[in-house]
Parts: sequence; C-alpha cells; structure tokens
Amino acid sequence: MERSLQKEMGGMVVSLELSLGSTYLGDRCCRFRVWAPLAKKVEVHFSSPQDWVAPLQNTEGGYHHGLVEGFEPGALYLYQLDSEKERPDPASRFQPQGVHGPSQVVDSHFPWEDDSWCGIPIRDYVIYELHVGLFTPEGTFEAIILHLDELKDLGITAIELMPVAQFPGARNWGYDCVYPFAVQNSYGEPEGLKRLINVCHQKQLVVILDVVFNHLGPEGNYLADFGPYFTDRYRTPWGTAINFDGPYSDEVRRLFIENALYWIREFHIDAIRIDAVHAIMDFSARPFLEELALVVDEEADRLNRRVYVIAESALNDSRIIRSRERGGYDLDAQWNDDFHHALHTLLTGEKAGYYQDFGRLEHLVKGFREGFVYSGEYSAYRARRHGNSSLRVPAHRFVVFAQNHDQVGNRILGERLSALVSFEALKLSAGAVVFSPYIPLIFMGEEYGEESPFLYFVSHTDPDLITAVREGRKEEFRAFQWKGEPPDPQSPETFYRSKLRWENRRQGTHKVLLDFYRLLIRLRKRIPALVYLDKENLEVSGMEEERLLLFRRWHGESQVFCVMNFNKHDLTARITLPTGRWGKIIDSSENRWMGPGSLTPKLCENGRSVTIRALSFALYEKERSE
Amino acid sequence: MERSLQKEMGGMVVSLELSLGSTYLGDRCCRFRVWAPLAKKVEVHFSSPQDWVAPLQNTEGGYHHGLVEGFEPGALYLYQLDSEKERPDPASRFQPQGVHGPSQVVDSHFPWEDDSWCGIPIRDYVIYELHVGLFTPEGTFEAIILHLDELKDLGITAIELMPVAQFPGARNWGYDCVYPFAVQNSYGEPEGLKRLINVCHQKQLVVILDVVFNHLGPEGNYLADFGPYFTDRYRTPWGTAINFDGPYSDEVRRLFIENALYWIREFHIDAIRIDAVHAIMDFSARPFLEELALVVDEEADRLNRRVYVIAESALNDSRIIRSRERGGYDLDAQWNDDFHHALHTLLTGEKAGYYQDFGRLEHLVKGFREGFVYSGEYSAYRARRHGNSSLRVPAHRFVVFAQNHDQVGNRILGERLSALVSFEALKLSAGAVVFSPYIPLIFMGEEYGEESPFLYFVSHTDPDLITAVREGRKEEFRAFQWKGEPPDPQSPETFYRSKLRWENRRQGTHKVLLDFYRLLIRLRKRIPALVYLDKENLEVSGMEEERLLLFRRWHGESQVFCVMNFNKHDLTARITLPTGRWGKIIDSSENRWMGPGSLTPKLCENGRSVTIRALSFALYEKERSE
Repeated sequence: MERSLQKEMGGMVVSLELSLGSTYLGDRCCRFRVWAPLAKKVEVHFSSPQDWVAPLQNTEGGYHHGLVEGFEPGALYLYQLDSEKERPDPASRFQPQGVHGPSQVVDSHFPWEDDSWCGIPIRDYVIYELHVGLFTPEGTFEAIILHLDELKDLGITAIELMPVAQFPGARNWGYDCVYPFAVQNSYGEPEGLKRLINVCHQKQLVVILDVVFNHLGPEGNYLADFGPYFTDRYRTPWGTAINFDGPYSDEVRRLFIENALYWIREFHIDAIRIDAVHAIMDFSARPFLEELALVVDEEADRLNRRVYVIAESALNDSRIIRSRERGGYDLDAQWNDDFHHALHTLLTGEKAGYYQDFGRLEHLVKGFREGFVYSGEYSAYRARRHGNSSLRVPAHRFVVFAQNHDQVGNRILGERLSALVSFEALKLSAGAVVFSPYIPLIFMGEEYGEESPFLYFVSHTDPDLITAVREGRKEEFRAFQWKGEPPDPQSPETFYRSKLRWENRRQGTHKVLLDFYRLLIRLRKRIPALVYLDKENLEVSGMEEERLLLFRRWHGESQVFCVMNFNKHDLTARITLPTGRWGKIIDSSENRWMGPGSLTPKLCENGRSVTIRALSFALYEKERSE
Repeated sequence: MERSLQKEMGGMVVSLELSLGSTYLGDRCCRFRVWAPLAKKVEVHFSSPQDWVAPLQNTEGGYHHGLVEGFEPGALYLYQLDSEKERPDPASRFQPQGVHGPSQVVDSHFPWEDDSWCGIPIRDYVIYELHVGLFTPEGTFEAIILHLDELKDLGITAIELMPVAQFPGARNWGYDCVYPFAVQNSYGEPEGLKRLINVCHQKQLVVILDVVFNHLGPEGNYLADFGPYFTDRYRTPWGTAINFDGPYSDEVRRLFIENALYWIREFHIDAIRIDAVHAIMDFSARPFLEELALVVDEEADRLNRRVYVIAESALNDSRIIRSRERGGYDLDAQWNDDFHHALHTLLTGEKAGYYQDFGRLEHLVKGFREGFVYSGEYSAYRARRHGNSSLRVPAHRFVVFAQNHDQVGNRILGERLSALVSFEALKLSAGAVVFSPYIPLIFMGEEYGEESPFLYFVSHTDPDLITAVREGRKEEFRAFQWKGEPPDPQSPETFYRSKLRWENRRQGTHKVLLDFYRLLIRLRKRIPALVYLDKENLEVSGMEEERLLLFRRWHGESQVFCVMNFNKHDLTARITLPTGRWGKIIDSSENRWMGPGSLTPKLCENGRSVTIRALSFALYEKERSE
C-alpha cells in the first residue's frame, strides 16, 4: 500500500509493457503469458511443427507465463486449461485457420521505413473509411496499396480501416471479431497490414484503425473459459457486457489497453476509432475510456508521434471529448451522428427510426455551429431528453460525414446516399461536410457516387447462429414495416454485391463528382478560413421556411461565406455581409459540375439579392484589401 | 424544437412545479395528477367517506389529471387503471392503512413558525443520525421533540432522520419504502413530521432526511403497473433498477425530483441524504444526480434558504462532489466510508469483508488528509483498483463517522463500537471524528455508549418474502463463516432489542462519555483552527510502526496540534512543532474521563519528547503571542 499511495499522488499509472500472448524473442525462444485466474494449470499445447506440451508457471494475479524453447514463428498452439479444455490464445497474434483453430507464433520484426513519420495533427485529417474486404476485388491489405495514390490525389490524408481483428469466416463487417490482436486471416498476414501502413506513412497518409472494445462476436469467443471477462450486471445490444468495472476488471482492461498499444507500437497505427463507446458499461471512478486516452497520450509522447483516440458514441455526452481539466475523458474526437442525421433528413425527407428527431434546417444549423444537435432536448426517438452541450468543445473534436458504414449498411437494402437523392443533392451534401468546421469523413465510394450497395453480411459457421442472425435482421426491419425479403446476410452474393466498382470513378457523372470532391478538399486545405477549425470564428444562420443555410468563417484576413439551398426550388435572398467585395470560388450548380447553370453572381457584396439554385451552394471568398 | 433549442442555451431547465399525486386546493376541491403512460383510462376510485369514481383526463406524455369536487382531506382513494387494476397513488401523501391500502387526500397547510430560519452552512453541521422507530419508546416524530434540547446541549446542529417514507408494516430501517411521498403511518401523520421540523427550526436545528432513489422495496411496490419505472438493462443489489436513463426516464426522474422538492418545500427539510447513489444506474449525458443537485440549488435560491444534497456513495468518485466547472455533479457532500473503515480497523483489528483493505495507520492518515483512502489503488476486497483522487475536493464536502446505521446494523449481531472496543478506544474514535477537518456524524446512542445493538429488522406481510429475507440474511453471514443463528429480522423482538435506552446516558461511564463528546464538540466550535474545515491549513503525519497519528491545523493566529496513539501501549515520541508554547486543551487519558491518568505535559514545545497513553489522544493549542 505504501508504494501505491505514493503512485497515486502522481495520478494514474499509465506506462505499460506489452506482455500478453506469445512473443517471439528470437533464437527459437518464445515467451507466453496469459491471464487465466480460473485455471490452476495452463499448458501450451503445440500442434505444429511437432506435438509438444510446455507447462506455464502460475503467478500472481492469475497470470500464467513461461519461456518455451525449440519453436519458431509459424508454430501453432492452443492453451490447455487444467488439462481439460484446449483454447486459442485470447491475445493470439494470428489465427491462420480461423476463430476455432490454433493460434500462431508470429515474429513481430518488420523492416519499417517510416522513421521520419510522426503523424499529422488531427485537425488536418480528411478521412476515408474503407472495408478491406470490399474495397478491392482481392479484398486484401496488399491490394489497397495500389489505390493509395488515387486517394492522395483526392486529398485524403487519413484512411480508416473498418475492424481487421479476426472474425468468423471470410465475410464480416468486422464487428464480430473475437481475437482483438489477430489480423483477419483472409485479409493477409499481420505483415500484410504492416506493409500497407508502411507504404501509407511513406506517402504521408495516416492510418486509423477501428477497434471493438464493447463486446466480442458471438462465434469463436472463448474468453469466458479463461476468466471473468464478462458480466451479467449490464445488458448491451450485442449480448453480454464486458467486465470493465467489476471484480478483476483491471486485468480485463489490460487486455484492451495492451491491444490499443499493440496496434500503435507494433503496427504504427496513428489513431484508433473506438466502436460504440456507449456499450462500454462502466460506472467506475476511473472509467476505462479515460484510462485508455491517458495511456495512448503517454505512448504518443514516448514514441514522439501524434497518436489519437476517436470515439463512436451515441450518448451525446461531451464528457467523452472534454478536457481533463473540465472533468472529461479527453478523447481526441468523436463521430457526430447528429450532423449526419440533420443533413440526411434535409436531403431525403426520411422520418423513420432516429430520423424522426431531425428534418428541420435549424438542426443542421445547430450541428454546424455547436456539434451536438441534441444537447438536452427531448428526443421522440429515445422518448427522453438527450445529450448535453458541446458548445465549448473545440471543433476539431468532431468527425462529420454524409455517409458511413453504419448509416448506409444499416438500411435494409444498404443504399448509399447516391441511390436516394439527386446528383445536385450529393454535391450539396459534400459541400456541407467538407466546408464544415469539423473533420470530414468520406465513406469509400462516396466520392464518385458508387452504385453498389453496402449490405450487412456475415459468414458464420454455426447453423443456429446463422438462423438467429437471419431472423434478427428480418425482425429489425419489420419495425420499418418493410414487406420484402431482406438480402441474406450469410450469402456470399450479399458480400460480392457490396464490392466497390472502382473503374466507375473514371467515367461520366462519377468522374464529375470525384473531381468535385477533389476541388472541395483542395479549397478546404488552401483557404485559411476553411483550414482552421474554429467555432469562435464562425457564424451560422438559417432561414427555416426557405431551407437556406448561410455561414461565414474567418481566420485572420481570410474570410469566406457560403450559402446553401436545401430547398427543391431556386431561391432568392438578400445576403448580409461585412463590407468589401466577395468573389465566388465554387458553385455546385454550374454546368461544369453538371448542374443546371448558376444564377449567383461572380462578385457579391453586402445587401445584395442573390438567386441560388435548388439543392446547390456557392462559396465566396473575401477579396483582400491590398 | 425551436423553443427547446432556445432553452438549451441557458442550460438545464430546472424550475419545477409540484404536480404529482393529490393536491388539496381547499373548498372540497382536489387536483389529481398521475403518470400512467401504459393506461388508456385512469379513474379515481374513492372508498371513503363515500364510494365514488371520478374520471381523469388523459393528456400529453402519459399524464392523467383532473379536478374532483366534493371531497375533503381524509378522503381515501385508489387509482383505477383501465377499469381493471386498483392501485394506491405512486405519489401518495399518506397511506393510513399501509402499503397495500388506499391513499389519503392530505391538506398540506401547516402553521409554520420558522419564518426566520434559513438554515446553517453545511460546514457547521454536527450531525446526529437517528431512526424514528428506535430513538424513543414511542417510536414517533412527536416523541423525538422531547429530546431535542438534550441533543442541542450535546452540541448537535443537525438531526438526520433515517428514511420516513412508507414501508411495509411498522418495523423497518426504512430502505424498503415504496411510497416516496408518504410519511410512514406508524411514525405519525405528515403533520407529525412537520411539527418535529417546526420545533427543530425554532431551536436552530437542521433536519436532514434520508431518501431512497435507487430502488423501491419488495413489498407494496405497484409502480410497474403505472409505467416503465424500472429497467432490466441493469442489475442492482436490491433487484430491479430504476429507469433513470432509458425511454420515458424523464418522467421517472420527475417523480424523484418532485419528491426531493416536496420534502424541501412542503416539509422545510434542510438537506437530503441520497441513499446509495452507486445503485442509481445512469449512463446519460445529464445524470440524474447532476440534475437533482441543480434543481435543489435553484429551489434553495428561490426559498432563500440553505438547502443541501448529500450522497451516500461507494464509488469513491470525486465527480459526485466536484464542482460543475470541474465536470462534477456538484453535490454538497458525501459520506466517507473509507474514513470509517480506516478508523474501525485500527481500533478493532477486524479484517473481514471490506475491512481487509484497511488496518494500517497510513490509511487513516490519508483519509484525514484527503478524504478517500482508495483513490485508484488496488482493493483486494473489490478485486480491482478503486476510486479517484479527492485531494482537491474541499473538506466540507465529506461527512465522517465512527459509527452509522450501516456499519453497526450490517453486523450479524448489530454490535455498536462500544461492544467491540475499550472505553479508551471509544474516546479516541470520538476525537478522530470530531477533530477531523470534515463534517462529523454521530449515530444515535454513540455519544453515551448505548448498549442496545442496532439489528436488521423488517415487518413484511408476504410469507414468501419473509422467508427470502431470513434466508438471504443467513446466506450473507455464511460468508463470514458465522455458525450461529442470526437474529430473526421479522421478529418484533429484534426490533425492540434495538431500541435506545435513553436513561442510560445519565449514569456511570455513559455519562462520562457523553460529557466527553460534549466537550469535543464545544472545542470544535470554539477554536478557529478546528472551526474552519480546510485541507490546505492541515498537516497530518503518521508513524506506522508506532501507530501514532499527528496532525496540525491552523487558521489565522489559531493553531492546534493533536497526537493520537492507536497503539495498545503507551508511547514516547519527540514532537516537531512550530516555535512557541503549546498548551494542552484536552487529554482523553485523564482520570476525569476515566482514563489511566495522563503522561503528556500541560505545556509543550518543539522537539520535546512526550509520552502518550495507549489508545488516547491529547490536543494542544498554541498560545497567542500578545
């Protein structure tokens, strides 16, 4: 206790060694460490290259560990618990035969060539979310590399990989993963992921990894055989909650904390995106998320690299992204679903499910100005008041999007926005996201209006589970009073239909949209008033009836204003502006963008009446007085 | 939405009308309002003075309301839900026939005589916790009044009533209450409680009320028939959790928020003590506790009275008592169990259950200095790290005690500290609590070493429940490897054995202890260094092996130091002090306190060696240089 009392004075203890799983030390020597407090005896049972059982030592805190000599990387093993059950390693580095097979010893050495890379500030992120299995015909890490130059040319600065940890079968969004440390075997070996990241860094591209800490998938999850990883004190939408605050939760947390460090330290990942933090049930005085953010901060300092933690959260709780001084967990950013919903409902008029809470221009105005749209107001969808204020949260702590895997994939038919709204509306949504004061995220294919859907798919092997997933999916959509038969999640067809058709981007309207996105991103990077994410130097207003949104942003001498017409009719409005001359920079209604032709003037000044085409926007920059 | 968006800008909406239940408006007219979103139709069915059914109007949000004429206070009624079930009012003001009987219309008028009362600052609280049923032979509010002068004479400034809301039968600690607004029928009518409070205020005594917002008792709980008051998303130690963050939780919260306001507004309660806030399961962005504290603050401003919210919390989470600026819920204080456990284990040497985490002097030193002893350290009892730092939390935000209803009553035999340790140790524990920089709480009878136990007792009527409680109690104690038969909670005998024997305080050692407590409290109020609760002007140190605790407190010119010997042997130690002469103020080992006679000097100065008797303490005050 004396020692720990000392430590306490300096705050949380955060530096951590990566200790779990098998670590190849070279010279045919491998270290094993596993937390199995329920087992008296744990042995390593090798099945390849030869059959061999090596005992581990049972040490304090339920950890079993030992050094085993005579095996090289590639060796396959299972843990034998009390001479009874044989189970893969909870911290397995690789599962060459899938979730039910043995774990593999992996050599972590890799010839990294990114020494000079130290990341980029999060405020400069332009994120591209992709699914490894669908992004290319091959569905591998390797195949992604060939497209990086095109993404860079688009202006992307960060690619975000949907979860790559081992899931059952070869087809899954990734949220059914059960081995947090093992790279999905169908995507390529761990080295394949490292090669991708290595090339990204050489090209000055950030790599964000989506990680799932709120649950484990329903198939191949053997953690409960090792220890109290789960708790029945809480229920989550995905079944058993992970034990983040009960007895033994320190060790449960360690698995996930080490996992975050593993990706950052061994894979040079630049940021992690934590899936659905609202399902991380944790009432402790030192919430896991706060601890994780602190550990990652320390690690970033140690590595002298910029490393970030981004949350997906449905809580609308600014605590997650508030600074520690203000009682927050100090995560670096969170996804802002409210912004999406506000934008989506304006464009589609949809009213089902959570969209019922949105649909007015003022929602987008507030999202644009503050972040959360629901900051304590009554939400009909949730049948309660929802959220707290994000007004004082810096703008660079929000990630916004017009589409993402959830918003597209959770639709019955997986329709992208391009299947729901007009070409004009697509350009308008692009402008709203890219010119917002937040970090923009583009969902793979969005930039050229991909026509493939993004469907929900799995490839389980357990027949009961397959039936349950199918039925669950149907049940989910019955709520929407949808009559037809939804696409079968288990069918390979469903997966293949969702693949990108990359060649499309080179032709017709696809190419126009791609060029449009490219220009938007260039402007965002070029004009100081757009570069600096700043709520203080921002003025947003809206005309509800007309569905006209106006905003002004400035930074030093640089000033822009933008008028966005969410109405299906052309509109004329008198524009109030600071004195000076404002020159038009981009107009989505122009013929070059396949629009109906612009009616807004090339130059604008205070009090002028301008006509804005239906579902279009125009951005003006103030001419400098020289 | 426009309106609510406006509201959001100014923060939470906090002013509230008391609307629920029956409100007698005078002139034989009564207003009814009940939240029953599951019912299409709600009627008021009067059974006395005549049989009569009055319909209510079903309005927005699931509220049913209406005015009924022709009935006076005293009328009895049930709500008829959809012409099927008949149920008492969830916000019943009185249940004259107990938890299963009809609710009664009550006239809230009372001839208050406390106009000039506006409370006292919480830092001046000296709390006396009492159980209405046990404090006097009569077990009524009325009977307490006769003892108030003696409590005042002792130095008490605040009495804290264990829960008085309606529970099943006539014997219960109060935590099985099921009608949050109804005053327990066996304690007296609502007017009886008002009379008690009225007299307290005239005598300048604060009244704190213990309220239970984390669960409802197992018998007579009909709330689920009215609406989604409960949720199965969480489990609590007492069964179903109350729905504080799910769909419809706004209205569930309203019941409890109105309840707090009800006690404050209609009963002039000065502070509420919220039972076990760790069982208020709430992941929302606007936690119920934060909202409650804000509402009570507003109400206090409105009433121009000092009103406080005090939590019981096992979380060791300073968030509960941190200021809003620092991301806290800003409750005014919380009970500090750690301080108790540290003190209790030093005195008793006990190691069972949660006491296993304590037992070293440094625990008490840290508790004395900071508040929480566990502020992130590993707790063996909890099998995880526990708590966060309370170092920056002001001292007046902690309530400390050497005994309370839980710490005594949760023992198999309900032994008070006086049954466990020597008379010397009792005086030492009194000194540690009263001279701490925190708010002291005394558990009824502690001040004179009451010999009755404080046992666990109930008086349920449901036979299955009675059996379950009996078995549960046995099960609980099996964990302590206790062989005997525990006292039967359902037996009236168990209750009567726990009654105070007030007459004892006038004789023998009881009287000496009482006089000792009285003097300690007087010193606490007289010496500025003890009056001002201040962690910054405090120095605490400990000699672990010797079990010697030393502290110095100061305020302006006023300075004290105290040496406390927790060892069973006399000890000699060299005392380091600021220069000057220090005069002894009180010494627990003196013969006048029935001690073995003091060995410490009357005057002390820096570097002097002093001998302190086993289990005793001496307090010195610095002589002013005039």
